[in-house]
Amino acid sequence: MAGSTLGTLFKITTWGESHGKGVGVVIDGCPAGLSLCEADIQKFLDRRKPGQSRYATPRKEDDAVEILSGVFEGKTTGTPISLVVFNRNQQSKDYSEIASYYRPGHADYTFDQKYGFRDYRGGGRSSGRETIGRVAAGAVAVKILNELDITFITYTKSIGPIAVSSGHFDFSEVTKNPLYMPDAEAAENAENYLDACMTELNSSGGIVECIIKGMPAGIGDPVFEKLNANLAKAVMSIGAVKGFEIGDGFDVAKATGKNNNDAFVLGEDGRIAKATNHAGGILGGMSDGSDIILRAAIKPTPSIAATQRTVNQSGEEISVNIKGRHDPIIVPRAVVVVESMAAITIVDSLFSNMSARMDALKDFYS
Amino acid sequence: MAGSTLGTLFKITTWGESHGKGVGVVIDGCPAGLSLCEADIQKFLDRRKPGQSRYATPRKEDDAVEILSGVFEGKTTGTPISLVVFNRNQQSKDYSEIASYYRPGHADYTFDQKYGFRDYRGGGRSSGRETIGRVAAGAVAVKILNELDITFITYTKSIGPIAVSSGHFDFSEVTKNPLYMPDAEAAENAENYLDACMTELNSSGGIVECIIKGMPAGIGDPVFEKLNANLAKAVMSIGAVKGFEIGDGFDVAKATGKNNNDAFVLGEDGRIAKATNHAGGILGGMSDGSDIILRAAIKPTPSIAATQRTVNQSGEEISVNIKGRHDPIIVPRAVVVVESMAAITIVDSLFSNMSARMDALKDFYS
Amino acid sequence: MAGSTLGTLFKITTWGESHGKGVGVVIDGCPAGLSLCEADIQKFLDRRKPGQSRYATPRKEDDAVEILSGVFEGKTTGTPISLVVFNRNQQSKDYSEIASYYRPGHADYTFDQKYGFRDYRGGGRSSGRETIGRVAAGAVAVKILNELDITFITYTKSIGPIAVSSGHFDFSEVTKNPLYMPDAEAAENAENYLDACMTELNSSGGIVECIIKGMPAGIGDPVFEKLNANLAKAVMSIGAVKGFEIGDGFDVAKATGKNNNDAFVLGEDGRIAKATNHAGGILGGMSDGSDIILRAAIKPTPSIAATQRTVNQSGEEISVNIKGRHDPIIVPRAVVVVESMAAITIVDSLFSNMSARMDALKDFYS
Amino acid sequence: MAGSTLGTLFKITTWGESHGKGVGVVIDGCPAGLSLCEADIQKFLDRRKPGQSRYATPRKEDDAVEILSGVFEGKTTGTPISLVVFNRNQQSKDYSEIASYYRPGHADYTFDQKYGFRDYRGGGRSSGRETIGRVAAGAVAVKILNELDITFITYTKSIGPIAVSSGHFDFSEVTKNPLYMPDAEAAENAENYLDACMTELNSSGGIVECIIKGMPAGIGDPVFEKLNANLAKAVMSIGAVKGFEIGDGFDVAKATGKNNNDAFVLGEDGRIAKATNHAGGILGGMSDGSDIILRAAIKPTPSIAATQRTVNQSGEEISVNIKGRHDPIIVPRAVVVVESMAAITIVDSLFSNMSARMDALKDFYS
Repeated sequence: MAGSTLGTLFKITTWGESHGKGVGVVIDGCPAGLSLCEADIQKFLDRRKPGQSRYATPRKEDDAVEILSGVFEGKTTGTPISLVVFNRNQQSKDYSEIASYYRPGHADYTFDQKYGFRDYRGGGRSSGRETIGRVAAGAVAVKILNELDITFITYTKSIGPIAVSSGHFDFSEVTKNPLYMPDAEAAENAENYLDACMTELNSSGGIVECIIKGMPAGIGDPVFEKLNANLAKAVMSIGAVKGFEIGDGFDVAKATGKNNNDAFVLGEDGRIAKATNHAGGILGGMSDGSDIILRAAIKPTPSIAATQRTVNQSGEEISVNIKGRHDPIIVPRAVVVVESMAAITIVDSLFSNMSARMDALKDFYS
Repeated sequence: MAGSTLGTLFKITTWGESHGKGVGVVIDGCPAGLSLCEADIQKFLDRRKPGQSRYATPRKEDDAVEILSGVFEGKTTGTPISLVVFNRNQQSKDYSEIASYYRPGHADYTFDQKYGFRDYRGGGRSSGRETIGRVAAGAVAVKILNELDITFITYTKSIGPIAVSSGHFDFSEVTKNPLYMPDAEAAENAENYLDACMTELNSSGGIVECIIKGMPAGIGDPVFEKLNANLAKAVMSIGAVKGFEIGDGFDVAKATGKNNNDAFVLGEDGRIAKATNHAGGILGGMSDGSDIILRAAIKPTPSIAATQRTVNQSGEEISVNIKGRHDPIIVPRAVVVVESMAAITIVDSLFSNMSARMDALKDFYS
Repeated sequence: MAGSTLGTLFKITTWGESHGKGVGVVIDGCPAGLSLCEADIQKFLDRRKPGQSRYATPRKEDDAVEILSGVFEGKTTGTPISLVVFNRNQQSKDYSEIASYYRPGHADYTFDQKYGFRDYRGGGRSSGRETIGRVAAGAVAVKILNELDITFITYTKSIGPIAVSSGHFDFSEVTKNPLYMPDAEAAENAENYLDACMTELNSSGGIVECIIKGMPAGIGDPVFEKLNANLAKAVMSIGAVKGFEIGDGFDVAKATGKNNNDAFVLGEDGRIAKATNHAGGILGGMSDGSDIILRAAIKPTPSIAATQRTVNQSGEEISVNIKGRHDPIIVPRAVVVVESMAAITIVDSLFSNMSARMDALKDFYS
Repeated sequence: MAGSTLGTLFKITTWGESHGKGVGVVIDGCPAGLSLCEADIQKFLDRRKPGQSRYATPRKEDDAVEILSGVFEGKTTGTPISLVVFNRNQQSKDYSEIASYYRPGHADYTFDQKYGFRDYRGGGRSSGRETIGRVAAGAVAVKILNELDITFITYTKSIGPIAVSSGHFDFSEVTKNPLYMPDAEAAENAENYLDACMTELNSSGGIVECIIKGMPAGIGDPVFEKLNANLAKAVMSIGAVKGFEIGDGFDVAKATGKNNNDAFVLGEDGRIAKATNHAGGILGGMSDGSDIILRAAIKPTPSIAATQRTVNQSGEEISVNIKGRHDPIIVPRAVVVVESMAAITIVDSLFSNMSARMDALKDFYS
């Protein structure tokens, strides 16, 4: 089906392959009157850019975004915003060998099964470069949300066995280490762990956590369009994500009602709040005004240099060593992708919530 | 927004509240020519019916389904199948007190925030009874899939700290214990654990696991409509689900590429298979022909008889004891709901996949 | 595909066949807090009820609507409103003969081609009874719009060669004649015309016109979701409608720019208005604040008693006389259906318009 | 709302303004394995290109299309096809005056009402250049349909009072006259009529007719997703279209059942056919295997050089003469746009029809 469009009122459509002419996104449904320039978007793209540390592929891409439509005199016009990043360094010759076999952990085999053949020059639509469109749209979504005082704190929560310690949490650390971890000590340990992985021609998984502050209550819907359901879809649609949690997530399975229920209390401002936040800011599919907390489990980079077994297109079992230098970890680069997908989902939910009540509707159109 | 419809080509629309006249579902897009009768659907509804063990609410409901449209002479006609279960035992008087305060862990507060008021006679649309429509539709979806030799194995994986042991796994056990666990010993331990919870006026969470066998390869799409993303949305849209995993799920965060990648091998029949299945049957968002494995983490029932703190609608902090006898665990009743949501998602993905290739399209229309 | 759901934020899903247990609609996305009772809906259904004049089928149906969900203490709750009308007078034996051949002008043949078989007891989903769900939803849509001071004037514009004269237009006449014409003289002429049709075992087509007053400007979108495009889809989805116009419609083909352009002027209240309304209230797909004017061309009832040629399911050419007494005209009963489809479309457009501007968005969420 | 995406399984998203960097379209859901190159698309774009006759604006645009993604080694890959035409000749200075007032018949006023401001350099999204994306997508849709032996005959049916005569119909004429009329004599008369319009600084409307041959029966759905309803939406979404008809269209209003019903007969090949085609190839919303016939009424170009009254943004009534040379007629250039929208709609309907029957589904997945 047409699987490259996401959203109802705030709709993004991405296109492009790793080794084509470029990648891009069309953002449709952005309200008119938002200040927007290329630098706003570039800032987000730079957070996922390759070649920035020894833990990320050295493939050099400027990843310079161009706005092709939808912005006039520095403001969005309400019409589609077309963004493009032209590919400049794709070197398709580097990838010629992989045409002949199915890389373990990649989508080569499933692409062939679905479509009958594939663009074998790289990951195609399953390449990490597909996320450029997501992140460019995420930059716009976050900008809209910031205008509504909704903000994001997103970071690497763990890498392999090394997790951020809540006692050491310091968000200002995330830009001081290449792993985007808000804990200097954990980051150092994780670097050591990754160095060992690299020595063994191996790779590591990890967890990204995203906290959304300032959400109004009542956003999301009670049944299929639960805010958590749409966040789950958006985040699980990122390649390599294998698990998703809201609030206490899988820990609820071992919890009891007494310790999992969040008591309602009166905050200092006299408004209703929750004494705890096991729910992660969502009750019955709707935001409850607390921080929304979500996590994504990201698998180890499947491209590793170690010898692996697979089958080639002639139907023979073979051993392969995938050439090139690979990211031993994609988690730090995925941080901004998770944030983007969450932001895109929340914008869409905020928009569709506007018609929830007759009184608000009458106010709006009076 | 209109949040009670799910799906693109196989579309379900549920309606109804716990204490209204009934609950129901309209299934639209079911192919013509499927044999279908009320007993096919009743069989599924009976798997979630209350009052069947001491671990489930004794509220008696026959939950007898009626087919109102879309079936003619025992076969589906291709037009919408409207299914209804009339409520017979709602006793709205039992719930009058809860109108005055917000139950912790429930959607009372978020409903009021979104809509300005709520149907306070029970959970309304957030009631477990809303899942009747899902399960009725799930019965139809599973029947379609069975015709394509796609089958489901779904069960309680864990309750509180008690998990099924892979060594003792025996799916035939699920109907022999009230907890729907495929392991007699774990079930016995879980019963003891739940008895202790009940003594303490407490409740427990748990995990449901669903294995889908017989999936063709190539189903799902590479970007936003990844099969795992749509499964995540569908399953996370079930009330009380706080986490979702495919394959190794959160364990991938601690894994390495070497042990997480599944080698491609040739099966005994000469066809390509995978030596392991860490991926849970999905690569790049598309099914790879292996079993699809997913899990849902389900929170403890929020309705507990123990004293809890909350705020009432006058804005006062109060202590409450929620009356009535409550399910100490909803996981066993959620098993069929998870299976239903997975089946509904897969049917939709299979349908939309039919136009993926020009050669198949030409064959179809020649 | 799943073709029985319409709309994005205000979504309706109809179900039911002419000779099944009933017909109904689920309305999803109705704002919370609208006063609604069965009488509000019944009033609309009574406008399309059969058996009210000698020009409509004498099939007796009370068509009494029941609200099954979504309304609590007289107000909508924001959750799906399920409405049902049980069939009471279907007499399926009357229709047994038509199982054997394809009625000219009906969907019998195309149903068989699409689905492989059909519910031959009547029109099935192509029956006029399918419009009950539309009209029930239309009653809710019109009620929402009336709260926003948007109102409808809908009537029979012409029957066969007899058209309402603009000089004689008097909307109060529509309830005084069985043809729903706002012109007593035209109504009398049309009755004579129809009497002649009936004598010849024949039937007549006609035109419905709908004028929507009080529309705010700026509703609709500039490209595919033009308000006129969505109105066209909604109205053309009514069985028997073969043409759709906005404003001057097909007359624009013979017009020139000088006489078709509507000059902008200042109204008496100092606000911008248009000196004429050839555009029918929509410019560039968006409402311009003038009356919206649309028309639907409705074909003659295909069920006629005269002898007709067709083919039976054995593949033989035959002559048939379709038994039973048939409506010689369906235009008067279609008036409320056209109004309903227009209202449903406009509600959806108003809702989705709410996120068009950043300033309004910030006001809404501040 | 997000109004620049159309379709369900074959989905197109257009972007771009008349005076921005370019215009484009993302086509998502095109099956893999279709041969496609830029020349295939250019051929269609050239049919709508300006500057080709004295009846079209002399604005020179090469309108050269580039394929940015979704095609590999000359075949579609099943992933999004991104097409762009960069604007080369926009000269935004020419349009500075129109920023100050609302052009009659244009969307300037409604844009301001909806979005609070507008890109005043030209029509923005309401420019005829927006149709470039539609036509580029239409080229792909027609190519898919041609592979299924479905073909299009589309032409100018009338210009002002001059209509093609069925007696003189010769489709090969359409490329021999600048008006795309299949009747040499009518074309000559229409040229004379247009010359007179131009002398008077005026413009003319007209009608486009599209005939679709080779449609399989059973395509489209019985209720909201009627094939005619979706065709109506697609065609009415073209700027300047004010009316839409299927088959006999508005003439059915004056017809009777006897002369409007199409008798079913046996064709020479022994298959069921219709003796006439008043229905225009669609019964009950589904194709009946006959030619599909549709028409669009297109208003006179609103940009005329004659003096017109309007209001400026200071709220004053003024007289204006819109500068520049304008198309006295847009009908000939709209021919390929109508064909494109019809083709896009039919592709989507064919795809979604594939899951209509269980037997076909089982065959497909066996």
